[in-house]
Amino acid sequence: MLSAPATPDQGGSTPETIAAEQDLFRAALTSSIDDFLTDQRDVLAAISVESLPLITSIAALTSGGKRMRALLCYWGWRAAGGSPAAPAPVMAGTALEFFQAAALIHDDIIDRSDTRRGRPSVHRQFTTRHADAGWHLDPERFGVSAAILAGDLCLAFSEELFTASCSGTGGSAARTIFNRMRTEVMAGQYLDLLEEAVGPDQAPVVAEQRALNILRFKSAKYSMERPLMLGGALAGADGALLAAYSAFALPLGEAFQLRDDVLGVFGDPEVTGKPAGDDLREGKRTFLIARATGASDDRACAEINAMLGDTDMDAGAVERLRSLITASGALAHTEQLIEEKSGEAFAALSTLPVDPVSRQALQLLAEAAVTRTA
Amino acid sequence: MLSAPATPDQGGSTPETIAAEQDLFRAALTSSIDDFLTDQRDVLAAISVESLPLITSIAALTSGGKRMRALLCYWGWRAAGGSPAAPAPVMAGTALEFFQAAALIHDDIIDRSDTRRGRPSVHRQFTTRHADAGWHLDPERFGVSAAILAGDLCLAFSEELFTASCSGTGGSAARTIFNRMRTEVMAGQYLDLLEEAVGPDQAPVVAEQRALNILRFKSAKYSMERPLMLGGALAGADGALLAAYSAFALPLGEAFQLRDDVLGVFGDPEVTGKPAGDDLREGKRTFLIARATGASDDRACAEINAMLGDTDMDAGAVERLRSLITASGALAHTEQLIEEKSGEAFAALSTLPVDPVSRQALQLLAEAAVTRTA
Repeated sequence: MLSAPATPDQGGSTPETIAAEQDLFRAALTSSIDDFLTDQRDVLAAISVESLPLITSIAALTSGGKRMRALLCYWGWRAAGGSPAAPAPVMAGTALEFFQAAALIHDDIIDRSDTRRGRPSVHRQFTTRHADAGWHLDPERFGVSAAILAGDLCLAFSEELFTASCSGTGGSAARTIFNRMRTEVMAGQYLDLLEEAVGPDQAPVVAEQRALNILRFKSAKYSMERPLMLGGALAGADGALLAAYSAFALPLGEAFQLRDDVLGVFGDPEVTGKPAGDDLREGKRTFLIARATGASDDRACAEINAMLGDTDMDAGAVERLRSLITASGALAHTEQLIEEKSGEAFAALSTLPVDPVSRQALQLLAEAAVTRTA
Repeated sequence: MLSAPATPDQGGSTPETIAAEQDLFRAALTSSIDDFLTDQRDVLAAISVESLPLITSIAALTSGGKRMRALLCYWGWRAAGGSPAAPAPVMAGTALEFFQAAALIHDDIIDRSDTRRGRPSVHRQFTTRHADAGWHLDPERFGVSAAILAGDLCLAFSEELFTASCSGTGGSAARTIFNRMRTEVMAGQYLDLLEEAVGPDQAPVVAEQRALNILRFKSAKYSMERPLMLGGALAGADGALLAAYSAFALPLGEAFQLRDDVLGVFGDPEVTGKPAGDDLREGKRTFLIARATGASDDRACAEINAMLGDTDMDAGAVERLRSLITASGALAHTEQLIEEKSGEAFAALSTLPVDPVSRQALQLLAEAAVTRTA
């Protein structure tokens, strides 16, 4: 648990003091994740030690990552007057980390991703376990099935943890936000799937609007707006403050996801840790792609549509698609939209009625989110 | 077959008055399910009307079924002194129904089942939706991906509902049982997968023990023990009463699942609604199968192992496997075990310190569970 830090100097906070405060929270978060997993390891061992690989697969995912959602939850809590040393944002942050791990496990099945953060994805881990042991029936089917269950278990863990964070006065409001967040992200993911399937047949302006709607629900709300609001609600923030959080975090989350979409096509594999043009192979119908097809002539548009989603796409094809997207003006347009959304977010942040330390912390998080290269 | 004790004093209740009380609960449960789905339909429509098929797929699953878990929760509540008209067991029962729907959606992906209760399974519904619309990319992959998300959403709904049932005094104890139940069923399902993969290579006595362990966690606790305890905990039952519930419901659940395993091999398709010998095609390593391989000579054992899990198994092969299982004595042994477990359950029921109406209701539910043919 978090040891009580010295009361921060409200006027003279520096990136260093903020980083130090975040480090304390991160350490508490890591302890909380580890403690929970230790308890659950005991629960599973009592059922059968052979079920422990489920925990191992979850532990690997919850041990890494940027902790962005948990940190937003923390600053949402702090900015609404919550005490730095309180357990509630640690528990809620832990719940968010497990929810994200569950989403990643199932996402990787859906996207057929073999790797996650440079390691085999969970379904690949179980496939390999089966193949290495020379077991019966199909290793890949075993891998996917086990990963569905690991994701389900991780979702259940997330809930169990979230409930534990909700015992205080803001618990009911936070619960409502958490419920909504889950529904939004799952519906958003379904719309994303649908877009890959239906995308090429739509009018460009419709496709752009749909892409923006998907990134709002699947990503901007889930990754930014809801975690910040969750922390605020736990600390008892009123409706006006939560609305002000939203005015900052929703456009920020949109800019964040638009940046992600650009990196998914133009990112440097050395920095992102993903193969170049990974989103192109997966056939993701992002705003960038919707814009590129809409702003291209018929021939270029047909070429983009024909190439997208080819899982065997080689480096030359990735380069060709990149040049078509750039030539259409979609890259410049998306960068401009990132700029606009970021500007909207930072403007909202400047009038957010919160203490200077929290404001500066949010400013640093926001800058990192929209200028990142990985 | 069933060794039920002589019917004790029922305090004037009859099967008819019990059925009438259950009908009231079932009607409240159905309203609760419908109301929740109506609310969620609005939430999803606000995201995009195109996400509504997620709700439709869940609604189809929650509209049917025997409501067995919800009814056990209700009688667990009633037997611990809860009022018949109270909302808590309705909410908890609704949560159990959504949890079960989520489990079915993901189970059908794992088992590659094309049908569920005579209708297409959820992943098949989405595959068909894709194929009929002539969308891009692979219909089957779309179907499985959408069903993973539908199951996740349904799990989240279950949680949302369960939280709403936990506001009373017994909420914390009930939450602990609900958390444990989910972990048990997911770990149990993983062990079941593992058994299909590892099964044939184990010593028979080990395989039998493992099969019993799986059915305990995946089924007996989940389908019987935990729902009953959940209702009791919500009504404030103490540890002694919950232990007495367990002494009744755990062996009952084991008998229930052993009966299910027998039906999965020997059941009449006209009655079960599933193809004859469905479990044999799926390669399920149940107690019945573990016993059959262990009690057969090497040649018959090898033949059983070679045939199990053949998805194209024809009627002749099903008949051959059935005769091998019967000849091994495994069917008779399993029936005897059902008898023993049922006897243990009914003995525990006879001393359960509850009112006569609840006792008779539990007696009727228990009889239906172990003598069923579908």
